[in-house]
Amino acid sequence: MNWNTRFSDAASRIADADAVIGILKLAEQPGIISLAGGMPDPGVFRLEETREAMARVLRDHAPEALNYSPNPGISALRAFLADRMARIEDIHCDPEEILVCSGGLEGIRHAFNALVNPGDPVLVEDPTYMVALQVCRELGGVPTGVPSDGDGLVPEALDETAARAAREGRPARVLYVGPSFQNPTGRTWTLPRRRAVLEVAERHDLAVVEDHAYGELRYEGERLPSLKSLAPERVIFVHTFSKIFGPGLRLGWVAADAGLIERLGLLKLGTDQCSSALTQRLALAYGEAGGLDAQVRRARGLYRRKRDAMLAALVDFPSRTPWLRPEGGFFLWSEVDCDTEELLLRSIERHGVAFVAGNCFFADPASAAARVSIRLSYSYVAEDRIPEAIRRLGQALRETAGS
Amino acid sequence: MNWNTRFSDAASRIADADAVIGILKLAEQPGIISLAGGMPDPGVFRLEETREAMARVLRDHAPEALNYSPNPGISALRAFLADRMARIEDIHCDPEEILVCSGGLEGIRHAFNALVNPGDPVLVEDPTYMVALQVCRELGGVPTGVPSDGDGLVPEALDETAARAAREGRPARVLYVGPSFQNPTGRTWTLPRRRAVLEVAERHDLAVVEDHAYGELRYEGERLPSLKSLAPERVIFVHTFSKIFGPGLRLGWVAADAGLIERLGLLKLGTDQCSSALTQRLALAYGEAGGLDAQVRRARGLYRRKRDAMLAALVDFPSRTPWLRPEGGFFLWSEVDCDTEELLLRSIERHGVAFVAGNCFFADPASAAARVSIRLSYSYVAEDRIPEAIRRLGQALRETAGS
Repeated sequence: MNWNTRFSDAASRIADADAVIGILKLAEQPGIISLAGGMPDPGVFRLEETREAMARVLRDHAPEALNYSPNPGISALRAFLADRMARIEDIHCDPEEILVCSGGLEGIRHAFNALVNPGDPVLVEDPTYMVALQVCRELGGVPTGVPSDGDGLVPEALDETAARAAREGRPARVLYVGPSFQNPTGRTWTLPRRRAVLEVAERHDLAVVEDHAYGELRYEGERLPSLKSLAPERVIFVHTFSKIFGPGLRLGWVAADAGLIERLGLLKLGTDQCSSALTQRLALAYGEAGGLDAQVRRARGLYRRKRDAMLAALVDFPSRTPWLRPEGGFFLWSEVDCDTEELLLRSIERHGVAFVAGNCFFADPASAAARVSIRLSYSYVAEDRIPEAIRRLGQALRETAGS
Repeated sequence: MNWNTRFSDAASRIADADAVIGILKLAEQPGIISLAGGMPDPGVFRLEETREAMARVLRDHAPEALNYSPNPGISALRAFLADRMARIEDIHCDPEEILVCSGGLEGIRHAFNALVNPGDPVLVEDPTYMVALQVCRELGGVPTGVPSDGDGLVPEALDETAARAAREGRPARVLYVGPSFQNPTGRTWTLPRRRAVLEVAERHDLAVVEDHAYGELRYEGERLPSLKSLAPERVIFVHTFSKIFGPGLRLGWVAADAGLIERLGLLKLGTDQCSSALTQRLALAYGEAGGLDAQVRRARGLYRRKRDAMLAALVDFPSRTPWLRPEGGFFLWSEVDCDTEELLLRSIERHGVAFVAGNCFFADPASAAARVSIRLSYSYVAEDRIPEAIRRLGQALRETAGS
């Protein structure tokens, strides 16, 4: 049987992702120094405390941890998250306004699926998180890029893009953003910019999906309020345990209107029915023992050092634009003087170093900016290999730009 | 903001599921004896062996178990599953032909999403697993029921339904079935029927999604070959750890053509990216120690006893059709002389006993058979409460039928 001729439109729309996956696989080959994936440094994990939390779960809750759990999440975990968000993020919501998901992406997916019809534009930062773009395309939505500057998403550009979509009879209903240490740019919006964007969102009645994945990993500078805390009704807040505990749990959550949460829960019923009771109980036990906050403190110190090491190594790197200096998160972003897909292949094959070419982060992957952009991740690479990785990458760039 | 007016077509198509969820919530209230959900009996869990397996995982693999894992599943687990399927199911495939999913349903979802376009008919047994129906509707597919008799799906009816769809210009591409101890009927197809249905599937070039969720829970009678073992190329085999270890792990898998598996992996990238490394490693450690086979043996004995207890209690129950006597699985199925949604409400409110009304398992929930059908689950209820549950249900039935 030839399965290739049988794929649905949805499956066909994401076929391009295959290439990205292929490159990520290359990046994981032995001998390659990878600056590609956004994996946490294993050094942030607190293994002994994790073992202790798991032992408590399997001592006190083993039968429940092995069985089905409520579709929207275990009640005690939802209550814990509500308390923690109030304490840390100044976000105040009831447990009924929280849906526990299997990673933050699952929350983004359900939000898009609940609010976007095929053909609808979905407003996104340009560049933005590549898997969110993929989900949007799979669902038949049309990612529509809105430019940013050093302060964050440009409100006038958002206004103009939303107005144009409305004029064309396809009003946008959803804006997806990562205002804090964004993937892929590492950029954080200023407070005035947050307010200004929310004003435009209100004018165009946009639901705002706020991706807070890296939000707690601020190494320096002053904490800024989340969009959710500034506009509780309008914002669908998506967070994850991946950067404050571990991606291996596959746990995240959405905070939003209770009626919307219920519908997202129905969509979750049709993906994995409920998230793992075992990992939910682990997250709760670890969190109740103060594990999340302790881990975030450790992670901040570790990632700051790695960011500094990479920025230091990049001082003489021939990029076209200065590297952004993120105050948190996992990523550095810039433009260079060549096609970065070409650079990537040469870089992997001849110099044994991998990164992610910028085009997969753009609504229009063929745009001029997309083709010369580059994302470097400092999160997973060993700190002492950073100088060598950057030296090799510079060599690959000189060869590619000169060829 | 009024979110109710913002829902997409996909989210609107599944709004009815809300009612089912509401009833399942009622069923879980204290004091209610629930014959509703399909949860495993906690007595099948082997807690000490589970604790030991988890201790090994967190001793030997803690950092990997907490981090991202490969999108299609941890290699060692895929290899383990390939070996185990060869040994137990006579299914022979490479690890590359296996996708680890977060429960069996995730596999069914991705198979539908990869192969079905909005408007396409999806051929299903009538009745069938209700969440598969929901997923099909969410994706815009049109569930199209094919009747069964005591031997399984009726090949002539399948032929006719597929031919009609083709004549109407909407050829069916997918057939979804549960040939072994099906949810909701408990029915198992005979071997000649399996072959006959596969012949019709070949004639109409249907991809066959085989749901094997309950397949290992045979208490008596002779093992029958899975459809996958009879038609390896055509069948997308979906299995789950939920009934051989625990649903709390949220793990299942798909065995299918390698190219199809790769595309299903891309769809998985857009739901939860990868399944939990922690629960995958636990499943592997538990499985390598012989835990799955030992648990299946224990489960068979336990569920057989509970099935017998329920059938004994039902001897004088005024059902319209004889209860099927399943040779495995979790469920009993019959028809009664009243609308079972009415019966359910009365049964919960006045008699404190819950079940699932049959209509949610049918492609056409308003059909005559759908309205009088009833599914009883013996899997979770305590064995010593079964006689009382059935007594109360009989009372509720007499009142409803007589009113």
